[in-house]
Amino acid sequence: MTEQEATSAARLRVGIVGHGNLGRGVEAALARNPDMVLAGIYTRRDPAQVRPLTAGAAVHRMDDLLAHKGRLDVLILCGGSKDDLPEQSPQLAAHFSLVDSFDTHARIPEHFDAVDAAARAAGTTALISAGWDPGMFSINRLMGEALLPEGETYTFWGKGLSQGHSDAIRRVPGVAGGVQYTIPIDEAVERVRSGSRPELSTRQKHRRECHVVLQDGADPEAVRRAIAGMPHYFDQYDTTVHFISAEELARDHGAMPHGGFVIRSGSSSEGVQQVIEYRLKLDSNPEFTASVLVAYARAVHRLQAGGQHGCKTVFDVAPGLLSPRSAAELRADLL
Amino acid sequence: MTEQEATSAARLRVGIVGHGNLGRGVEAALARNPDMVLAGIYTRRDPAQVRPLTAGAAVHRMDDLLAHKGRLDVLILCGGSKDDLPEQSPQLAAHFSLVDSFDTHARIPEHFDAVDAAARAAGTTALISAGWDPGMFSINRLMGEALLPEGETYTFWGKGLSQGHSDAIRRVPGVAGGVQYTIPIDEAVERVRSGSRPELSTRQKHRRECHVVLQDGADPEAVRRAIAGMPHYFDQYDTTVHFISAEELARDHGAMPHGGFVIRSGSSSEGVQQVIEYRLKLDSNPEFTASVLVAYARAVHRLQAGGQHGCKTVFDVAPGLLSPRSAAELRADLL
Repeated sequence: MTEQEATSAARLRVGIVGHGNLGRGVEAALARNPDMVLAGIYTRRDPAQVRPLTAGAAVHRMDDLLAHKGRLDVLILCGGSKDDLPEQSPQLAAHFSLVDSFDTHARIPEHFDAVDAAARAAGTTALISAGWDPGMFSINRLMGEALLPEGETYTFWGKGLSQGHSDAIRRVPGVAGGVQYTIPIDEAVERVRSGSRPELSTRQKHRRECHVVLQDGADPEAVRRAIAGMPHYFDQYDTTVHFISAEELARDHGAMPHGGFVIRSGSSSEGVQQVIEYRLKLDSNPEFTASVLVAYARAVHRLQAGGQHGCKTVFDVAPGLLSPRSAAELRADLL
Repeated sequence: MTEQEATSAARLRVGIVGHGNLGRGVEAALARNPDMVLAGIYTRRDPAQVRPLTAGAAVHRMDDLLAHKGRLDVLILCGGSKDDLPEQSPQLAAHFSLVDSFDTHARIPEHFDAVDAAARAAGTTALISAGWDPGMFSINRLMGEALLPEGETYTFWGKGLSQGHSDAIRRVPGVAGGVQYTIPIDEAVERVRSGSRPELSTRQKHRRECHVVLQDGADPEAVRRAIAGMPHYFDQYDTTVHFISAEELARDHGAMPHGGFVIRSGSSSEGVQQVIEYRLKLDSNPEFTASVLVAYARAVHRLQAGGQHGCKTVFDVAPGLLSPRSAAELRADLL
């Protein structure tokens, strides 16, 4: 074995399943984690059409995945929560340890059960719903409540581009393209931060801002009304619609910023206010989600090696498992 | 067994060792955690001189602690890091599972080793250095680095009352009393938040504000110079000294607010900035520290019951272990 092979053998071999924005983000994150190596990208498309960011990265058909079992330590699933992950995560957990970013909050319990059954039977470890919400925000909701049982938790999202709401406005008749930003309302954030524990309506917490390209001949007023009145998506919010050109859309709205706040405001004894705030300000939502998935892939591999099989979530992972550094080093340097 | 006994038997029985500000904070926190019960306060003072906040709480001599082994599930040690914990934590870990708030960062490795040896031999679980720094801030330093390996971590403290610096100014000749507040410099915090990753000197990150009561006939200018020039404590900071009356000191400076920020600023790929910020704004430093100790006491008991013995830190504890709620409930409600 050459020295290079020895080094490479010690690294965690990661397979990426799906190569959209999230899969590309995982590639970027792997490049910043020298204890891991990209061992293959798996796609349902024609592999020749996929352009990896990583020099020399191998792209394979999804159908080849099972045959590569011995070459991969952990998979990072980069498909969507609506159609891909509910099928893929249980199927693949029967063969591989893996991490997914399943983010349909209401369906997490059933997704957990399906993945857990497959992973337990196979002796793999599969961590679901990693990312920032669910993920980092969830950890902060849990810890806020555990540290300050008497209190309220507030989650604010944004300023950020919402994929679901952007899709919704693009389905409105007369709309040729567009994006939607969710924006937390500063006054609400400040009231929560002050420790006053206000009751806030949906409208008081966030507003929505749309940048829309009209189809030729479309009526701007009709489009504006159709968007602002859309049930669930917009009708409970103050919504602003800006009309822009296709050029402006391409030039100014191609990035995917996001972020937000989790604030726990509680009292440790009568009249003694304590406020915990966790905040993310992200230039790129998919790249940050990918960074979280990669750190949890490291933890999943360690849990699997330690015999902790089955489905896990971020709630089951001790912080130390996320770091490539030894426990003694972490205690000396970061505690 | 009556119903009341059954309920009480299921609760975690916590012993408090030491009854200063931190011990009183633990009492307040236990009152907000119905799955736990205060099973006894242990003191080196005359128990008759200790006034518990909790109606009916039993106060015992430290010498009685070992004889009460069967009545206590976990101890929360509330002594100081300089003289008490280096002795007490290893000694008591030989008999009890426990949590301490040892906060002398440089001596954590040796404290860990001493406690680990005692706890492993006894089959107990002892978690050291819980609180907010070390503690919550440490977790955020670790996670920031693990999620964004390419980046910088910044810790700011305050605005808050520093016990060590307040003690230092009270030792200056001519000073009858006083307190010191550590204050993060807004401009530095804003620069870090912006993602620009500045290099900041000690003086650029924090300033120090002292409120001092002079002894009769003391020279204010001499006192001001003695404080501002004190090596390590003040000489590397911009320090303001305000002279106040003993009445003002008692009236305006009796609380112990604190807090601060841990900010990780990193890039997930070339030019893509991601900023993670964790912030605490605490009316009472000892009460928040106590709240953290109590949540970790729950986790320690679970680790001990699960066979994970020896010395632990916050890096070894999965978030779910801190909550009294079941894993399924946490996934459904908070993930």
